[in-house]
Amino acid sequence: MIAQLRRIAGDDAVIEGAPAPYASDATQETLGLRGSARATVRPPDAERVRRVVAWCYDHDVPIVPRGGGTGFAGGAVPSEDAVVLSLERLDRFRELEPAAWRAHVEAGVSTATVTRRARESGLLFPPNPGAAEQSQIGGNVATNAGGPRAFKYGVTRRWVTGLEAVVAPGEVLRTGGAVRKDVTGYDLTGLLCGSEGTLGVVTSVWLRFVPLPERSAQVAGFYESAADGCAAIAAVFASGGQPAALEYVDAGALAATAAAFPAAVPAGARFLVLAEADGRDAEVASDAAELGEALAAGALLTHVATTRGDLDALARWREGVSGAVTGLLGAKVSDDVAVPVERLAEMLERADAIGARHGLRTCSWGHAGDGNLHVSFLLPPGDLPLRAAAMRASHELHAAAVELGGAISGEHGIGSVKRGELGLQLGDVGLRLHAAVKQALDPKGLFNPGKKQ
Amino acid sequence: MIAQLRRIAGDDAVIEGAPAPYASDATQETLGLRGSARATVRPPDAERVRRVVAWCYDHDVPIVPRGGGTGFAGGAVPSEDAVVLSLERLDRFRELEPAAWRAHVEAGVSTATVTRRARESGLLFPPNPGAAEQSQIGGNVATNAGGPRAFKYGVTRRWVTGLEAVVAPGEVLRTGGAVRKDVTGYDLTGLLCGSEGTLGVVTSVWLRFVPLPERSAQVAGFYESAADGCAAIAAVFASGGQPAALEYVDAGALAATAAAFPAAVPAGARFLVLAEADGRDAEVASDAAELGEALAAGALLTHVATTRGDLDALARWREGVSGAVTGLLGAKVSDDVAVPVERLAEMLERADAIGARHGLRTCSWGHAGDGNLHVSFLLPPGDLPLRAAAMRASHELHAAAVELGGAISGEHGIGSVKRGELGLQLGDVGLRLHAAVKQALDPKGLFNPGKKQ
Repeated sequence: MIAQLRRIAGDDAVIEGAPAPYASDATQETLGLRGSARATVRPPDAERVRRVVAWCYDHDVPIVPRGGGTGFAGGAVPSEDAVVLSLERLDRFRELEPAAWRAHVEAGVSTATVTRRARESGLLFPPNPGAAEQSQIGGNVATNAGGPRAFKYGVTRRWVTGLEAVVAPGEVLRTGGAVRKDVTGYDLTGLLCGSEGTLGVVTSVWLRFVPLPERSAQVAGFYESAADGCAAIAAVFASGGQPAALEYVDAGALAATAAAFPAAVPAGARFLVLAEADGRDAEVASDAAELGEALAAGALLTHVATTRGDLDALARWREGVSGAVTGLLGAKVSDDVAVPVERLAEMLERADAIGARHGLRTCSWGHAGDGNLHVSFLLPPGDLPLRAAAMRASHELHAAAVELGGAISGEHGIGSVKRGELGLQLGDVGLRLHAAVKQALDPKGLFNPGKKQ
Repeated sequence: MIAQLRRIAGDDAVIEGAPAPYASDATQETLGLRGSARATVRPPDAERVRRVVAWCYDHDVPIVPRGGGTGFAGGAVPSEDAVVLSLERLDRFRELEPAAWRAHVEAGVSTATVTRRARESGLLFPPNPGAAEQSQIGGNVATNAGGPRAFKYGVTRRWVTGLEAVVAPGEVLRTGGAVRKDVTGYDLTGLLCGSEGTLGVVTSVWLRFVPLPERSAQVAGFYESAADGCAAIAAVFASGGQPAALEYVDAGALAATAAAFPAAVPAGARFLVLAEADGRDAEVASDAAELGEALAAGALLTHVATTRGDLDALARWREGVSGAVTGLLGAKVSDDVAVPVERLAEMLERADAIGARHGLRTCSWGHAGDGNLHVSFLLPPGDLPLRAAAMRASHELHAAAVELGGAISGEHGIGSVKRGELGLQLGDVGLRLHAAVKQALDPKGLFNPGKKQ
C-alpha cells in the first residue's frame, strides 16, 4: 500500500503510519485524543489528491482529510485502518483579484495568510475562528468555521462562492466559482461547507472579501453576575446598531485570565461582555459610544479600546482564553452549543448546574450575540472517571441546548467527540435525510468514517 | 381524487383543475406560458399540507408547490397530471421577536409583510427581490431570491436560520430554528433554499433581521456607453466602501423607461449606474459623496436622491423597468445570467451580439455589483418563430456566461424555462451529484417534476 501510494502521490508524499501531528488535532491537548493510521499522504497538488482518493475508494480504504489540525471535535483524528490525507502542500493562491474583492485559494493556505493578503489589498476576509496561523482555509470550509465576527458578517459559508473538491469515487467536483450569485443547481457548495470531510475532500475555494473597515473599537463591560451581563447584551440588541462582535466570558474563565487582561479588572467582576464596532471612522466613534452606553447600565466598569495597540492587546488576550482555561487543571472537555440569544442566561445557568451535578469545575465563554457558548468541563489530564463524567455532562448540555431551541454544535462541529448525539437535535426525519445525503455522495462510507454521525 | 383531497385538506381547500392564477406565474406575461392541473389545493395549515403531500406521494401524483406566482422561470407552471399545492393560506407570523432580531413566519406570508413588520420593529429584512406585495416568503426561500440589496446583504439563504418543510413521503422536516449558528448536521436548510420545490414543500421559515439603517441615499450616473458605465462600476469597487446596491440599466431598457425616470435623463445617455448607500446618518452622507465621486468620472451627469420622496420615486421607477421592457413589443424571453463582475462589460457585448445574430431586439438591466444581468429578448406576443429564435439565443447566452466563469441563473432559477441547460454549467460530476441529491430526497420524483433539471 505504501508503495502504491508513493507511485500515485510521489515518493516524498507518503509517510508510514501517522506520526505527530497527523494522529490528532486540538483534542489531543484538551482530551488526550490520539488516533493511528496506515499511512499519511501529503499530495503536492489537487490532481494527486484526486488519484489518492480514487485509489483509496477503489481499495475500500477510509480517507481522513486533514487541514491545520486545530479542530476541537476530533474531526481529524484518524482510525487505524485509514489513510490521513493532509492538504498542507496545496498552499497556493490560484488567483487574487482585489479589484473584484475575491481570491481563489487552495485548501492548505493558512487562514492568517488569507486574512493578511486580503488586508494588503485593502480588503477584509471576515471569518476569524482563531488559531489563524495554524488553521487552514480548507478546514475552515469543511467545518464552516465561525468566530467572533460571525455576529455581523456570518460564518465561513457566506464568504465561499464556489469550491473544488474530490468526491467519490475519485472525481473532481467544481461548484460556483468567481461568480457572486448562482442558483443554477442545488447548493452543493453549502452541502460541502461544514460536512467535516465526510462528503469529499475540498482542494480549493473561491472566497469573497469586503472593503476593509477604516477602523474598529472595542468596549468591555464588567458585571457582578451573568444576569447583569445578559441584560447588557439585550441592551446592545436594542440599541439600534450592529456590532461586529458581541462576546462574553463567564466568572470561571474570567478568573483564569483576569491577570492577563490588558486593563484592571474590577473587584467582584464575575462576567465580561466585549463588543466590537467596525466601519468608517465617524461611524465607529458613534457606534462605540452607543455600545458604551448600552454596556454601562448595570456594569461595574467599562473599558474602551480604540488604538491599534490596545485592540491588539485585547485580541491577544481573547485568543489566550481557551489555553488559559485548559491550564487550570490541565485538560478539559470543550463543548460548543448554541441557543436563541434570549436563552443565553438560562443556558449559562443550566451549564453550571450540569457541571456541578457531575462534580465538575465548569466555565464558559463565547459568542454571546450568536448565542454560542463554549462550555468547558475541567479535568486533570488522564483522570478517566472524571472524563467519563464530563462526557455525560456534555450529553446533558446538548439535550439542554436542544430543549431551549438550540444546536448541539454552534461552530466546532460533531467530529468524533459528539458522535451519536445528532439524533437529539435533528429528529427522525432530519437524521434520515442526513444519512440519505451521506449515502448519495459517499456510497461506500469511506470519507472520514465515524465523524458527523 | 377531488373528493379524497377535500376529505384531507378541507372542503373549501380544493378546486378542480387549475383556474387562473394557479396555472401560471410571471412567465404568462413574458412568454405566454400556461399549464393545467388535475386539482389546486390550498390547505389551511402545515399539517394539512403534510397530509396532501402524503396522499399525493402515496398515489404517485406530482406536486407543484406554489407561492405568489411571481417567478420568471416557470417554476410554478403545473403539468396536467399534477396537483397545484398553494401555500397562500399559511399566512401567519408564528413568532415575531424584535428583541432578538428575528421572526418565524409561514410560507404564504408576503415578502412585503415581512419587510413591513420588521420595519415597524426598527429592523430590516434585507432581501428585496421585487414584486414584494405578491411574492411570498416561501417562494423567496424556494428560489433563494436575490434583488438589488443582495450586493451588500447577500441572498435570501443568508437570512434563513431554519425551516419547516414537508418532504417525501409526507413527513415534516425541521432544520435549524431560532438559533443563529448551527453546524450540527449537513446544511439541509441551504439545500432546500433554492431547490425550487423539487425536494420538498417549505411550510415555514425562521428569518433573521438586522437593525434598520438610519437612512439611505442613491446616486445615479448616466454614461454615453456601457464601457464608460462599467468603468464607473469598477471605480465603485475601488472606492473602499460597500454600497447596499449597485445596479445598471442598459441603452434599450433606459430608452423604455427614461420618460418615467424621476429626474431629467441627459441626451445621449446609453447606460445608467445606480448605487445605494445605507447605514448611520453620518456614514451615508460620506458614502454617498464617495459614490458620487466614483460615478462622476466619465459620466454625462449624476443625480443624487436623499429624501424619502426622491428615494421612493427611484424605487418605483426601478420596480417598473421589467414591465416597461415587456411593454415595448408585448412579450419577452427574460433571462438571468451572472458573471464575475469584471466580465460584465464583455457579457453585455455578447448579449447584444447574440440577440442581433438571431434578429432580436435585446436589452438588459440588473445587479451590476453581483455581475447579475437580466437580459431580455423582445417579442410580439404569440410570435412563435421569434420565440424559438429567442430560446436559441438564450441557450447561447447561457453558454457565454459559463464560458466567462459565470452561472446560467443568478437569481431567477432554472424552473422549466431553462430545462436541459444545467449540464452547460455543472459538468458531469456536478450533474451526477445534483441528480443523486434529488434521488435521495425525492425517490419517486414527484416534487415539481421537470423543474430544475
